[in-house]
Amino acid sequence: MHKKIGIIGGGQLGKMSILEGKKLGLSFVILDPSSDCPASTIVDEQIVDNYFNEEKIKELADKTDILTFEFEHINADYLMRLESMGYKIYPSPSTLKMVQDKYQQKTFLNKHDIPTPRFMKVDSVKTITEAIKDFGLPLVLKSCTGGYDGKGNYLIRSHNEIELAYETLSKGSENLMVEEFVKFNMEISALVARDINGKMEIYPLAENIHKDNILIRTIVPARINKEIEKKAKALALKTMEHLKGVGVFCIEMFVSNDGDVLINEIAPRTHNSGHYTIEACRTSQFSQHLRAILELPLGSTELLKPAVMVNILGEEGFEGKTEVIGLEETLKIAECNVHIYGKKDTSGKRKMGHVTILEENLDKALEISDMVLNTLKVISS
Amino acid sequence: MHKKIGIIGGGQLGKMSILEGKKLGLSFVILDPSSDCPASTIVDEQIVDNYFNEEKIKELADKTDILTFEFEHINADYLMRLESMGYKIYPSPSTLKMVQDKYQQKTFLNKHDIPTPRFMKVDSVKTITEAIKDFGLPLVLKSCTGGYDGKGNYLIRSHNEIELAYETLSKGSENLMVEEFVKFNMEISALVARDINGKMEIYPLAENIHKDNILIRTIVPARINKEIEKKAKALALKTMEHLKGVGVFCIEMFVSNDGDVLINEIAPRTHNSGHYTIEACRTSQFSQHLRAILELPLGSTELLKPAVMVNILGEEGFEGKTEVIGLEETLKIAECNVHIYGKKDTSGKRKMGHVTILEENLDKALEISDMVLNTLKVISS
Repeated sequence: MHKKIGIIGGGQLGKMSILEGKKLGLSFVILDPSSDCPASTIVDEQIVDNYFNEEKIKELADKTDILTFEFEHINADYLMRLESMGYKIYPSPSTLKMVQDKYQQKTFLNKHDIPTPRFMKVDSVKTITEAIKDFGLPLVLKSCTGGYDGKGNYLIRSHNEIELAYETLSKGSENLMVEEFVKFNMEISALVARDINGKMEIYPLAENIHKDNILIRTIVPARINKEIEKKAKALALKTMEHLKGVGVFCIEMFVSNDGDVLINEIAPRTHNSGHYTIEACRTSQFSQHLRAILELPLGSTELLKPAVMVNILGEEGFEGKTEVIGLEETLKIAECNVHIYGKKDTSGKRKMGHVTILEENLDKALEISDMVLNTLKVISS
Repeated sequence: MHKKIGIIGGGQLGKMSILEGKKLGLSFVILDPSSDCPASTIVDEQIVDNYFNEEKIKELADKTDILTFEFEHINADYLMRLESMGYKIYPSPSTLKMVQDKYQQKTFLNKHDIPTPRFMKVDSVKTITEAIKDFGLPLVLKSCTGGYDGKGNYLIRSHNEIELAYETLSKGSENLMVEEFVKFNMEISALVARDINGKMEIYPLAENIHKDNILIRTIVPARINKEIEKKAKALALKTMEHLKGVGVFCIEMFVSNDGDVLINEIAPRTHNSGHYTIEACRTSQFSQHLRAILELPLGSTELLKPAVMVNILGEEGFEGKTEVIGLEETLKIAECNVHIYGKKDTSGKRKMGHVTILEENLDKALEISDMVLNTLKVISS
């Protein structure tokens, strides 16, 4: 087990993966353009270059036993070529390629009778206007590729906004789609691990609260009834099975007001809504991902204690050298597990850290999480 | 909180400290003679040199905001000089200096009415023979300084062994003592954290099982009655108070057949018998030590689940490149948390890793720990 793992990306997900992998004595090389990225100081070696540089991706693959990635907006075509040359890459580049394109992703899901919000391709103000006739308002305009944390999405609330929405998004991508706006009761997510032989383990469902399209709070277990839980878990497992994903994937879902469960989005990687697993579960999502791709037995996903996770985002209006305030007050709270990612610079809404609150009583955990959000802040100095 | 911490030593204790500190975004520099020591790949910078090189210790202090150490057999005199020059060093070098010498340590404890086994200085076969008249046989001959994991100890079982014992130990040190052999019922230890203002937090008592003077197994909570627990915790806290220790210390104790509690030894640092805290407690001993020396609030020591920790020692008869066997079988056991230190070379009884078993029922945890000891082994390839 002197395995060396190559990770494309060295952000907080890469960092937390390495912290877990080091417990098992694993080695890591990352490819990240920023020499002071969160994972930079705990990695055996870093290749400083951008994620699309094929020469550097090859160098990473040559230096390591297995290749993986911490985020999905990378060069899937080249990874497919590398895979055909015999390199081990998990999750599989062809799964990545399909998931990268939200239109293809949702088409794939529907083909396998997995429900999603209704959607269609659009390429002009005219086709968007026509879509409104079918799907009504509000309507979500999306870039098919490249979006995350609300980037690449535009919520069209009235006909007046169609033109601006189209102009805004068509600059970044000519590949656009619209999606019906689901009046959901709750957003939930399931982390599913799948190994090379198809064995799967699913984590407890997480309830997610977003603000401006960015995850703010995750509550585990999600406050849903048994029936919805069963339905959602079955859907998540079915999705993972069809995707033939290897590693940890996050399946984000809407629970509609009528109790229907629809797949919102798939992330072919560990996910912000799974950070709670580090302290709350027997096996963290990060160590689970490593087990899956290294052909080691998957670990138990048992929840040891209910948890609330809150994201610490850079305060708006502050840009520059990171300064964390309120750390002492937060560390005083017994239930809090504080994570600071170590990003040198902050900016408004940048993900700078998170806190996981372990507490039997979820109402109390939520109260504490409010306290934390009011106390622990990242500004610039 | 962009603090940089200097650690003298980069073994497994240093490694686990850094893994915890990185969660808070801290930076670390270590001084260790071995460029591939366990902490080497996760540290911001390593000074490769021996622990006694004053120039290098000064370099380490100059590069960091605060100095600490992961083991006690280091240059305390020079650290005292650095401290007098205004460098921040915790635990305090004068406490370290006193604890390093077991004779001074026990004299200090007795002076403060803290019970220990009876002991006296010896310097010849004759004085050892005389000591036997007082303390009886068996008798423990010890080097006052430098010993650990049974090194520097000799158990004299009969008069015939006196000469060999004296010859063996007097080679390494001329500073010898004898200690009465306590017929103990159980060995226990308490981790105590104390901050700069004297605030203390004590962890649940751990029951320790040694083999050939090396820790094999730790069981938490220790299987003792409330009365002994109360007595032992009070003694540990009293000891820490008198030591004015800052950081995490481990107080090892004997529980005699009569229910008396005696202090066996003090380690002025995080300790092998505290590894269980990583998964079983709200705050690990490593992150607690960092909180204490950085003047951050101490964390909760609450036990979330009972635990058994077993050490994975290098198999005897194997020396050379480390090879871990039985890892897959161990990872299959849901209750196991596996730690492999990443030492390049193994040798008989070298500490190569540990496994912490979290399980409500201690008997079941002990059964699992037997399985692990029979399965997970380190040999050489």
